[in-house]
Amino acid sequence: MTEVLSRRDLEFLLYEWLDVTSLLSRKRFVEHSKDTFDAVLDLSADIAHKYFAPHNKKSDASEPTMRPDGSVEMIEDIKEALDIYTAAGLMAGQFDEHIGGMQLPTTVARAAMAWFQAANAATASYPFLTIANANLVAHYGTDQQIDDYVKPMIEGRFFGTMCLSEPQAGSSLADITTRAVEQDDGSYRLFGTKMWISAGDHELSENIVHLVLAKIPGGGHGVKGISLFIVPKLLLDNDGRAVERNDVVLTGLNHKMGFRGTTNTMLTFGDGTHRPDGEAGAVGYLVGEQHRGLSYMFHMMNEARIGVGFVALALGYVGYLKSVEYATVRTQGRALGAAGSSSPVALIEHPDVRRMLLAQKSYVEGALALGLYCSMLVDEQDTADNEDDAAAATLLLDVLTPVAKSWPSQWCLEANNLAIQVHGGYGYTRDYDVEQYYRDNRLNPIHEGTHGIQGLDLLGRKVIMRGGAGLKLLDSRITATVRRAETVAGDAQRYAGQLGATWNRIVDTTSTLWEDGDAAVALANSSIYLEAVGHTVIAWMWLEQLLAAEGKIGDFYDGKRHAARYFFVYELPKTGPQIDLLASRDRTTLDTNPAWF
Amino acid sequence: MTEVLSRRDLEFLLYEWLDVTSLLSRKRFVEHSKDTFDAVLDLSADIAHKYFAPHNKKSDASEPTMRPDGSVEMIEDIKEALDIYTAAGLMAGQFDEHIGGMQLPTTVARAAMAWFQAANAATASYPFLTIANANLVAHYGTDQQIDDYVKPMIEGRFFGTMCLSEPQAGSSLADITTRAVEQDDGSYRLFGTKMWISAGDHELSENIVHLVLAKIPGGGHGVKGISLFIVPKLLLDNDGRAVERNDVVLTGLNHKMGFRGTTNTMLTFGDGTHRPDGEAGAVGYLVGEQHRGLSYMFHMMNEARIGVGFVALALGYVGYLKSVEYATVRTQGRALGAAGSSSPVALIEHPDVRRMLLAQKSYVEGALALGLYCSMLVDEQDTADNEDDAAAATLLLDVLTPVAKSWPSQWCLEANNLAIQVHGGYGYTRDYDVEQYYRDNRLNPIHEGTHGIQGLDLLGRKVIMRGGAGLKLLDSRITATVRRAETVAGDAQRYAGQLGATWNRIVDTTSTLWEDGDAAVALANSSIYLEAVGHTVIAWMWLEQLLAAEGKIGDFYDGKRHAARYFFVYELPKTGPQIDLLASRDRTTLDTNPAWF
Repeated sequence: MTEVLSRRDLEFLLYEWLDVTSLLSRKRFVEHSKDTFDAVLDLSADIAHKYFAPHNKKSDASEPTMRPDGSVEMIEDIKEALDIYTAAGLMAGQFDEHIGGMQLPTTVARAAMAWFQAANAATASYPFLTIANANLVAHYGTDQQIDDYVKPMIEGRFFGTMCLSEPQAGSSLADITTRAVEQDDGSYRLFGTKMWISAGDHELSENIVHLVLAKIPGGGHGVKGISLFIVPKLLLDNDGRAVERNDVVLTGLNHKMGFRGTTNTMLTFGDGTHRPDGEAGAVGYLVGEQHRGLSYMFHMMNEARIGVGFVALALGYVGYLKSVEYATVRTQGRALGAAGSSSPVALIEHPDVRRMLLAQKSYVEGALALGLYCSMLVDEQDTADNEDDAAAATLLLDVLTPVAKSWPSQWCLEANNLAIQVHGGYGYTRDYDVEQYYRDNRLNPIHEGTHGIQGLDLLGRKVIMRGGAGLKLLDSRITATVRRAETVAGDAQRYAGQLGATWNRIVDTTSTLWEDGDAAVALANSSIYLEAVGHTVIAWMWLEQLLAAEGKIGDFYDGKRHAARYFFVYELPKTGPQIDLLASRDRTTLDTNPAWF
Repeated sequence: MTEVLSRRDLEFLLYEWLDVTSLLSRKRFVEHSKDTFDAVLDLSADIAHKYFAPHNKKSDASEPTMRPDGSVEMIEDIKEALDIYTAAGLMAGQFDEHIGGMQLPTTVARAAMAWFQAANAATASYPFLTIANANLVAHYGTDQQIDDYVKPMIEGRFFGTMCLSEPQAGSSLADITTRAVEQDDGSYRLFGTKMWISAGDHELSENIVHLVLAKIPGGGHGVKGISLFIVPKLLLDNDGRAVERNDVVLTGLNHKMGFRGTTNTMLTFGDGTHRPDGEAGAVGYLVGEQHRGLSYMFHMMNEARIGVGFVALALGYVGYLKSVEYATVRTQGRALGAAGSSSPVALIEHPDVRRMLLAQKSYVEGALALGLYCSMLVDEQDTADNEDDAAAATLLLDVLTPVAKSWPSQWCLEANNLAIQVHGGYGYTRDYDVEQYYRDNRLNPIHEGTHGIQGLDLLGRKVIMRGGAGLKLLDSRITATVRRAETVAGDAQRYAGQLGATWNRIVDTTSTLWEDGDAAVALANSSIYLEAVGHTVIAWMWLEQLLAAEGKIGDFYDGKRHAARYFFVYELPKTGPQIDLLASRDRTTLDTNPAWF
């Protein structure tokens, strides 16, 4: 079986580039060592290959169904894999020891999770969401909520979800209509319908902890009136046992193009199907303060957005590795000029196939570098020696999050597209794996904030907030890399010039776009801005990798150098016309009359 | 139900731009009139909407299966639709009257077929392949072969296939191993396995006429030794009735990501399952001369390549129309700066959604223009008043065919990608139509010559053949449009300058690439060359449309002008970095060591 991710590349990025072992000097990680990091990576790779990868196609072909009693039926392999995952303690990765966690750096925990995402993105969704949920409640919940819900999630007995969207309100959360009515005992009863809830129902765990956005009547308009609630599928008794059905029911499973192994649900809260204490209404517990729900949820959402980038790159990565393998074993045609009577050569001998492999390599390894870089920022934010460093990490993470979410979602999907193309007709069949990756990956530009939403977030908020402090910080980091690279003769020096020039144009163009404060004009092409920044940030990641490989010998490092060359020659120049368009403050989208379509 | 294609756009392209009625002066079309053209388009739209569109999702969800007896089971709707199609005489479109055809211009026949491809690409494959097959045999077959096979195909009683690929030989036809052994009576017996044969088996017609490439032992090496054979599924009696099973059997159905309603098969010839006259071997009849099979097949293939462009654009078109409709009725969010308490607006009010709709419009309408332009070249080739004009049409068609195949396959797939994105989460579900278009359309960059093969064909053959005569001819046509546009003040003039400059760079770069005759270097980035030429050719199509709309008033024409603006502002500039790369004679793909992956 082909490896689903490259352990060698992880080693390089974690240890040779990011120096993740430098975190060992932080108090939080003092019990750890490179050995414990490696052990988690080994364990994850092993379980991912043995228990997650084998049912990836099967769960795609046999998607979950609703039984007549409203429960969910799915192939048993999913539960078997997740039981092994939780028994190995992997749900506990980054959590505090005092609540049962392993207190691993987020960077290591993310790298570990990537193995599962590459092996089986759909099955990996269950722990992915559970961890994000538990992380939020661990931050903002009461001690009791942590005992009741976070600890069982870390133990893998309860799973979690995030319930934001409704049928009429996806990107626009201001328009949610789910209500939460306060009760005499301080709890709430929720009424409403949630849509697109991944892992929203199943029999994989003892309980499901829904984190639900709802409006408390009398609260403010729009997003200001939104609060956050824990709504368990099963209510707990005094001993914390899940014993009684709450008034939350599965009202539909969505049938998707991909990601079929993850139940994606419509859930109805409070329709009276179940009546806790004799009353209709889903019992919910307020997290934190009233009307601050969206800010808490964005804690989870920002983490989830980087996580979406990871699943996108993991799907890209496994497709890349499988297309390399295919191109190595499959023969077709001859080298240019070879005699017709000679033997066919491997696909990998054809320049156009190499182009498609190099493109994939540059996309997936570039995206992995960015994902791990952002994860290091999370660790820095959580454990920096001083507040300034922590605040800087938060700020940089804020700016990079829309890129870390959207770039892999766009370009690692393109990697999957190329992986199919390398396979030719076989790649279009379900006998091979790559077509599923392409279908699975198509979700990622949509959920957790669409591509367009990420563009608005980056250009409309992140690069202008606090007087552009985030952009300035990113500028200082990119410039520092450029300066270092300028001192290295050869490719690095040349690419440094190219990156510096492109980045300076982006900084200038950001000012141009906002020069008169007309947001409509500034944001008219925010998706293009996002894409231009994205390619430039990934070029920065490639220059960083080139520097980390400097002076090192062997095929692995030559491969890094060559992929960097590919990215600077074929990819970064694509930003030229994008920046030209932005700099012109083009009004084409604004000047469109809907009647013209 | 949303219209699957725009009749208004077809009217514009056929009558206001291409002036297809000018063909009525040609002897071949003298029995026709604008009324008969319109009647065919009306009839096609009507049958496509009533009988093809309704089972599009159903045939995707219930793909054909093999029965234990080796026959194919599929939903009945496919046969019902095709029976109505053939009963209406639509299979007869472009064929000569004396063999039962309607003698329609290819341009009109293609436009008619596009309705079916947009409504149901999978079901439309059966007549598409039958027409291409019949057209080949009508050209190169004997009178007897025409009576026996072409006429029943035109009547819709027999269907046809093209059998080129084998499990080990897809792009590289030189490596096929199917053998054809001549018999005493002048017929042949075929032995071998063919792969990826669309419509290769079914019960939709009385008989299936396979056109099979095979090697006659003792013939030349590689492609030179290939001959072409008619191999019917059922052998005919003296009255032309299909009566006895030939030794061709279905040995497997391929399970694809999309296009599921079209059986895609592995066929075994001559394994002795059936024994005509007591002998194993599939009975075949040579078409034309021995060892010239590939040149005949390329007659069919070139037609099929433009046809692939049509199905790609038809899938793009229907997705575009459905996403316009969705963006018009679905509300989400508010206009920038609007009060939170205001009502949500339609998606189409958001600039980024407009960008995605404009992109789709520019791709699908640009591709349709190119497809119809190429079809007019076919008509010109077949009916021009003098040989020079006919030869010029053939030459230009030769150059444009790789573009007409590959550009829609790439960019109308991207249109489908954007159609999903406009739909958000709903677009990712099978409750809406767009995810299927995306899956269906992914086939098109693969079959009938992959994207990479088209690039090699364009740069390695088409633009250099006959001393670059094809490129010069294309140059003269593009330059003529530029000259006309330069005389029109405003956008057309500006775009003329932009197109002229881009095109001149391509011509110059073509010379640069071939300056030292080193084919390895010249072709190292042939796919990029294909893409740069493609975008430039489509820009030319948009400038042509802009001129055709000049001075005309109304939303339709404003829409054309705005889509042209989109293409020149957002799309054509993408060729800049591509041409830079090509002009540098970059060696990145050549310098790649496979060990680096």
